[in-house]
Amino acid sequence: MPHISFEGPKLTKEQKEELVRKITEVSTSVLKLPKEAFTVVIRENDLENVGVGGELLANKLKK
Amino acid sequence: MPHISFEGPKLTKEQKEELVRKITEVSTSVLKLPKEAFTVVIRENDLENVGVGGELLANKLKK
Amino acid sequence: MPHISFEGPKLTKEQKEELVRKITEVSTSVLKLPKEAFTVVIRENDLENVGVGGELLANKLKK
Amino acid sequence: MPHISFEGPKLTKEQKEELVRKITEVSTSVLKLPKEAFTVVIRENDLENVGVGGELLANKLKK
Amino acid sequence: MPHISFEGPKLTKEQKEELVRKITEVSTSVLKLPKEAFTVVIRENDLENVGVGGELLANKLKK
Amino acid sequence: MPHISFEGPKLTKEQKEELVRKITEVSTSVLKLPKEAFTVVIRENDLENVGVGGELLANKLKK
Repeated sequence: MPHISFEGPKLTKEQKEELVRKITEVSTSVLKLPKEAFTVVIRENDLENVGVGGELLANKLKK
Repeated sequence: MPHISFEGPKLTKEQKEELVRKITEVSTSVLKLPKEAFTVVIRENDLENVGVGGELLANKLKK
Repeated sequence: MPHISFEGPKLTKEQKEELVRKITEVSTSVLKLPKEAFTVVIRENDLENVGVGGELLANKLKK
Repeated sequence: MPHISFEGPKLTKEQKEELVRKITEVSTSVLKLPKEAFTVVIRENDLENVGVGGELLANKLKK
Repeated sequence: MPHISFEGPKLTKEQKEELVRKITEVSTSVLKLPKEAFTVVIRENDLENVGVGGELLANKLKK
Repeated sequence: MPHISFEGPKLTKEQKEELVRKITEVSTSVLKLPKEAFTVVIRENDLENVGVGGELLANKLKK
């Protein structure tokens, strides 16, 4: 604890490394807890599995 | 915001389109918010990763 | 299963009733599963606990 | 309801069967609800998608 | 990691203690990981915020 | 989308403001998406609702 879940698009390994490092850094500074307390889970979603405004991103971004 | 996550079985793209459209429509009508405010994430699960009543659906549905 | 979580603002009981009924209806029609299979959980959030575009909704909506 | 989500590493089918059975058993005994009321969803994560202490488990476990 | 979230009704402190202890014990035995690796979060829901079969549990259980 | 949920302890409003701002900033820089695309939801948990290593934090931190 704390547990952070990042729900978003497909990412490269480099992006995941940077995201986990930076999110943990800022969270550590705000909560004044040791960084080992923080878990970050990245959930990559197909554009076909995400809808915004009633439309799949897979279709929305094709326009 | 609002953020809706739909955790269920594998779906076809047509089902995802219809689900996102209709869930957004009914949510928009109930909350009186613009449809662009709504995000829907569909999480498809293998039957081997879901248990009901203490048994994997993969085994339960084979019976 | 399926399990639907609706993460949004505070709602009245009437809105919750309508949301649960309508989301279950459209989901039942799309997945062709009996309505008893569907669980909907509504998570109400304080505007102070939700950030969009880097700003708490509690502050954003005051402007 | 209740809905239990287990977010962890890749598991074998046997582990999933045992996990679902045992988690449902102990939850049933504590809540005194019929086991059919319980749903367990297992989310398997790549080590590249999980960060602990600011570092991806994929890198951390290589050391 | 692993992170287990238990979404259910209001519980007493004793039930929470027993649930956390027992879920961690069985998970530890199945995954062969040290118990310190496991986090369990209990989310208590009002019956007015949970719908099963298209109806709020608050109304369903009154019948 | 992306949707970030931060599951942790009780926080002050100032901490929430800083957390939302900084998490959005770093996420924007890594994903190269406009900050308006990012939603952050903060879930505050009682220490009695979180277990680590099989024990409620409410009890663990009393020792």
